[in-house]
Amino acid sequence: MNANQYLIGVPGSRQSLDTPALLIELPALKRNIARMAELAASRGIGLRPHAKSHKSVEIARAQIEAGAIGVSCATLGEAQVMVEAGIPGVLVTSPVVGANKVRRLVELARQAGPGRLMVVVDHPNNVEALASEAAGLGYRLPVLVDYHSGYHRTGVADAESAVDLARKIASTDTLVLRGLQAYGGNVQHIGDRRQREEAAAGLRRNAAAVVAAIEAAGMQVDIVTGVGTGTHDFDSSARVFTEMQPGSYLFMDSAYLDALTDASHAAPFETSLFVQSTVVSVNAKDWVTVDAGIKSLATDSGKPLAARGIAGASQYEFFGDEHGKLIGDPAHRPSLGERIEFVTSHCDPTVNLHSFYHVVDGDTLVDIWPIQARGRL
Amino acid sequence: MNANQYLIGVPGSRQSLDTPALLIELPALKRNIARMAELAASRGIGLRPHAKSHKSVEIARAQIEAGAIGVSCATLGEAQVMVEAGIPGVLVTSPVVGANKVRRLVELARQAGPGRLMVVVDHPNNVEALASEAAGLGYRLPVLVDYHSGYHRTGVADAESAVDLARKIASTDTLVLRGLQAYGGNVQHIGDRRQREEAAAGLRRNAAAVVAAIEAAGMQVDIVTGVGTGTHDFDSSARVFTEMQPGSYLFMDSAYLDALTDASHAAPFETSLFVQSTVVSVNAKDWVTVDAGIKSLATDSGKPLAARGIAGASQYEFFGDEHGKLIGDPAHRPSLGERIEFVTSHCDPTVNLHSFYHVVDGDTLVDIWPIQARGRL
Repeated sequence: MNANQYLIGVPGSRQSLDTPALLIELPALKRNIARMAELAASRGIGLRPHAKSHKSVEIARAQIEAGAIGVSCATLGEAQVMVEAGIPGVLVTSPVVGANKVRRLVELARQAGPGRLMVVVDHPNNVEALASEAAGLGYRLPVLVDYHSGYHRTGVADAESAVDLARKIASTDTLVLRGLQAYGGNVQHIGDRRQREEAAAGLRRNAAAVVAAIEAAGMQVDIVTGVGTGTHDFDSSARVFTEMQPGSYLFMDSAYLDALTDASHAAPFETSLFVQSTVVSVNAKDWVTVDAGIKSLATDSGKPLAARGIAGASQYEFFGDEHGKLIGDPAHRPSLGERIEFVTSHCDPTVNLHSFYHVVDGDTLVDIWPIQARGRL
Repeated sequence: MNANQYLIGVPGSRQSLDTPALLIELPALKRNIARMAELAASRGIGLRPHAKSHKSVEIARAQIEAGAIGVSCATLGEAQVMVEAGIPGVLVTSPVVGANKVRRLVELARQAGPGRLMVVVDHPNNVEALASEAAGLGYRLPVLVDYHSGYHRTGVADAESAVDLARKIASTDTLVLRGLQAYGGNVQHIGDRRQREEAAAGLRRNAAAVVAAIEAAGMQVDIVTGVGTGTHDFDSSARVFTEMQPGSYLFMDSAYLDALTDASHAAPFETSLFVQSTVVSVNAKDWVTVDAGIKSLATDSGKPLAARGIAGASQYEFFGDEHGKLIGDPAHRPSLGERIEFVTSHCDPTVNLHSFYHVVDGDTLVDIWPIQARGRL
């Protein structure tokens, strides 16, 4: 597939894209990147943003240029894309399990070179597999102990297991213990700011206790990573985490925008990601049909919001794989061919449905960025 | 991305794939293709299966070889892939709206040649745009009137509008009216067989009335297309439709398997599509974590079912973008690195998340097929 196919007609105009099209509003994206970088710098905490959200080399480079120390990746496939593009400081935030994948990870570490790729572990068998495969690497592969953080998706179950696993890592000749990951995936979207703050504080206390236990056992913990968009403000002010791995602050989908906005706080980041659709059928009495459905908008976190191109109140409903139903104000009924843009409820899986970002500044299409790690599961 | 990256290790084994991996069980797929082709042949109805489900040139070819008269496509991008691969008889089943897309459609019709590409229309403005663009085509572009079929996603609202639109098509020098599309998207998944049969019969009566009205106005209706996997048995026995456009019969996701199975009827097709995952974390007390989540399994129609690799009852829950929670029988707890395969609740958007089919026969990986039209929205 070639990006140019999207540019038939009038290149340079936001209104001439083939829809459904994933859009980034570049000024908003740049402001989000700068704000998080400034916050991290002002609080003396490292920023290793999560590339699982954007899956894009261009965005990773922009984050590094703004001061990020590297990027985090959820999968080995994402890490390959980032390492091959020369992005430094890649952290794989999920355990890499299975003989083939362990082999690929170590091969990638060889390609990256010392200090450019780290991975988390949560099980002694996985430590053994990594240690054995890393024998030919030529340098010690840096690893972090993954702690469950109350979420129990991945990670060791308690401080004792963390110490045991850290000891096992330290006992190898081929791995080096760098620290701890404690990512609270279940804390990030808590809508009440006070409750979210308390949950984050609880997680930090637990993480600090695990760090203390590992250090009490005579091992060094240089890195404590975690922290998403939802807790960045609290976690960056406290002295537990040495670095953060937020992703969604870039795009601010409607779920995060809701969670981070309340009566006394405006969200510190702004929505920069949109899906543009075209009205393709106008014969139904109570709605029009647009060409964006299940295959272009994530469905796991609720309905998208109509954001641009429509006057009056409106509501989107999924209408099959390729279509959406837009129920609107009869006084402002869109006509055939009109463009309607939506804010997604969940940015990461929406990005994963598309092959390109259409980068716009106002009404001008200024660039097309491939989503290199799309589908790199 | 290269398919070979999935074959590192021990090519040829179902157990050496990098997960999450989309699997097709080839014998089951072949049986499904043959059964639908035989049914269509025995009932004297054409079969133009929907390629939106599989998005694969290899599968389209297998359907044609088994007797299909062409393939149906939901999007222009899918149609491009099929035409470029030499697949004959491509029908685009959604109106193609907007100047750029109309231009691309006519360019594709030129590339395909006469009789190889058709499209539906549901609005006079769209007829005008197509007629104008097709002026330089060299042959008349074949079009079908799209009828709403009770679903009102796309399609004209009533018989009178259908006649008006047919007249408008017939009045052009560059288009040719070929017939009617009446696809009941809301009928296919009705779980009660009797109710589904009645709903299909009602839709056929309406479609027949629209056909009669167009013919009474002096125009010819050669093609009446519609019919999905859910109504194929009823609709193929009646004398309204001249052809069917089912897609999901190939794969039989759990939603269709449920809808088509009841006390007195076994589903006539079998599940052939699976997502293989690996157990990547086993530290939680009540579940294990697998590496298949929102980015590898569709979320719009409910949870996937664990189908292979696990003894005892089990339940899957989505656990973020890259992970799933598998709650199972404590007596049969999977260990780290085990493979678990899932049946998806909705095949089309699951296929759209992946770049390759891993084609297996028993434990042997026999082929890898690219999903050429993935993301061709």
